[in-house]
Amino acid sequence: MVASQSGAKQDGPAPHPHAGDPVFDLHVGGKLETVSTVSLDGPDDLSMAYTPGVALVCEAIAADPSLTQHYTWVPNTVAIVTDGTAVLGLGDIGPAAAMPVMEGKAVLFKQFGGVDAVPLCLDTIDVEEIIETVARLAPSFGGVNLEDISAPRCFEIEARLKEMLDIPVFHDDQHGTAVVALAALQSALRLTGRTPEATRVVISGAGAAGVAVARILLEAGIKDLVVTDRKGVLNSARGDLTPVKRGLAVDTADNFGRSGSLADVLVGADVYIGVSGGTVPEEHIAAMAPDSIIFGLANPTPEVHPEVAHRHARVVATGRSDFPNQINNVLAFPGIFRGAFDVHATAITEGMKLAAANALTDLVGDDLAEDMIIPSPFDPRVGPAVAAAVAEAARRDGVARR
Amino acid sequence: MVASQSGAKQDGPAPHPHAGDPVFDLHVGGKLETVSTVSLDGPDDLSMAYTPGVALVCEAIAADPSLTQHYTWVPNTVAIVTDGTAVLGLGDIGPAAAMPVMEGKAVLFKQFGGVDAVPLCLDTIDVEEIIETVARLAPSFGGVNLEDISAPRCFEIEARLKEMLDIPVFHDDQHGTAVVALAALQSALRLTGRTPEATRVVISGAGAAGVAVARILLEAGIKDLVVTDRKGVLNSARGDLTPVKRGLAVDTADNFGRSGSLADVLVGADVYIGVSGGTVPEEHIAAMAPDSIIFGLANPTPEVHPEVAHRHARVVATGRSDFPNQINNVLAFPGIFRGAFDVHATAITEGMKLAAANALTDLVGDDLAEDMIIPSPFDPRVGPAVAAAVAEAARRDGVARR
Repeated sequence: MVASQSGAKQDGPAPHPHAGDPVFDLHVGGKLETVSTVSLDGPDDLSMAYTPGVALVCEAIAADPSLTQHYTWVPNTVAIVTDGTAVLGLGDIGPAAAMPVMEGKAVLFKQFGGVDAVPLCLDTIDVEEIIETVARLAPSFGGVNLEDISAPRCFEIEARLKEMLDIPVFHDDQHGTAVVALAALQSALRLTGRTPEATRVVISGAGAAGVAVARILLEAGIKDLVVTDRKGVLNSARGDLTPVKRGLAVDTADNFGRSGSLADVLVGADVYIGVSGGTVPEEHIAAMAPDSIIFGLANPTPEVHPEVAHRHARVVATGRSDFPNQINNVLAFPGIFRGAFDVHATAITEGMKLAAANALTDLVGDDLAEDMIIPSPFDPRVGPAVAAAVAEAARRDGVARR
Repeated sequence: MVASQSGAKQDGPAPHPHAGDPVFDLHVGGKLETVSTVSLDGPDDLSMAYTPGVALVCEAIAADPSLTQHYTWVPNTVAIVTDGTAVLGLGDIGPAAAMPVMEGKAVLFKQFGGVDAVPLCLDTIDVEEIIETVARLAPSFGGVNLEDISAPRCFEIEARLKEMLDIPVFHDDQHGTAVVALAALQSALRLTGRTPEATRVVISGAGAAGVAVARILLEAGIKDLVVTDRKGVLNSARGDLTPVKRGLAVDTADNFGRSGSLADVLVGADVYIGVSGGTVPEEHIAAMAPDSIIFGLANPTPEVHPEVAHRHARVVATGRSDFPNQINNVLAFPGIFRGAFDVHATAITEGMKLAAANALTDLVGDDLAEDMIIPSPFDPRVGPAVAAAVAEAARRDGVARR
């Protein structure tokens, strides 16, 4: 019945340029495949799954488009869309070279959220072209996960698509990072006896992740927040800010009249969150408040090495799997889309992101400790807990269709 | 480890509008899923399939884009692209309602060719927009299967994309049908002792299938060929022809000075191939040459019912699975893409299509009989035989990259 079920894989034994390297060996033939969920063992199966039977289903959907939600894979399928301009820490490596990351993401979506995912690497970096391309693809997907698109282009692309489409649009580099960072920070505040209102936070980096982390911290009740870029504190006195950075300045440093360099604002700060890359000198960290909290999220080299951070801070987190407290997006995006898809949500709201963060913080529960402020990605409770919280928030926010 | 492997499917027991109808029951949750080909059982797996390990693969591809062929799913993956304007016999039902057919097609690609396939239903019917959308998606796919796009738009879309892209672009409604019809016709000619050169063929229908069947018959050596549309024979005397129809007129009826109605040209014809829908009256069929060959390919109602056809013809075929000699595209497209992908072909040439048809004719071999002019789709030799012939032809035609 089956001609050759995995054509590409059959070539496995053929030599490849990096044969012997376990990472490359693992990648031969890619990491993803499409598989039928129905059996096709004879003419009867064929006449139901394909012509003539399938015509009945097509006609039913043509008469009532909402039946797409019942009779296709669309409501459980996310498009992972990139233009390859900001891939990991590698920068603008283009759509072809971005594919292994997108395939990996697709695998994580399925593994941790039961979400089907299709990697789409686009051969354009034009904002308008990306927007119109995704909009034209929308009937085929239950949601869109934007990935590794450089700032500030990513902000406009996401905002415009959210407005145009009635399915969830989510830029994971922004919001996945933000949700997990907030979850970890909430644990750290609890551990150090702080309230959001009385905590001074400094974020270095005003790219995709920095902006989103800042926004979710404000949503979560942090008041005294400062964001810095390479030129120092974002405040309205600066004449060189993009619209996104200007908006952030108004909602952060302006309120407390903060200015100067990263070093200046770290003095006496309770929390430092690095999403900028580069290195923060130890003496600047040393000037923070007692029992400080340091998240160095750059990969693979945190802004503050955990060993250095631990000399001065009480709680330390990174983006790396080889240190405790890994701030890993995979804790968020699979469960967020699972929850959104479970209720056929039309969008992912601020409330759904906060609910996801709270679910992660709650999962730590009684295990809370300096080296346990966030669950492991392999904790089997994570996906279902995030999904349930997100689905409930979707209903509360009025974006659930069932 | 796994949060909820098949979220949508878990809702299976919930009632759906057409519950109890076996076709609709089969379609609940759709027919397709994405599945990982690598295991993700712990942090070590994660660090190879995703960050930080995956960065090595991305960097290698950025340095040498041809490595996409080794380390991603791209070279084994086809995009099934439609705008929903000519779905089965249902016509312009739109992209959402087209999805069940495209999912079915994806399932057939995998089952019969080992090809991964992603259904993409586009929210545009503009020729330029379809072309540019597919071109932007090209880095993500090893090939493009255009599907159920109405004529004459489909001709321009296919021709332009073939010119723009260095991966196979194949409009199955044209070429899949053409390959299988040619294969069946070659068997029928052998059975009735005819040569292509001395056979008079009439095709009714000058849409996607009709044009492609005509073109491949000319390639295969048929000389005396006439194509009709609703207004009669396509010849250059007519002032109402599209460029595609005019080109076909020059290469067919013009050469033998043929004109008039379908009834006129059926008098004394050896072969009638219907790809038009509608019904041909029995007296017109009765006027064909002795030992005639009749293919009524319209679905679900052939242009000539097999019972009627058999009163006058020696060999009869339809598109239906409930009569002998089913002209079914699934005999062609999975093996054609399998063969093209196996050699990383940059295109699907005329030679590759002819090779596919010849492989199907050859498979009938000694079983050749009036009711056995084409193999069954469930004959396990079909996919591999077509793939091998296509791969060889690709090498011969200089479009193989390995």
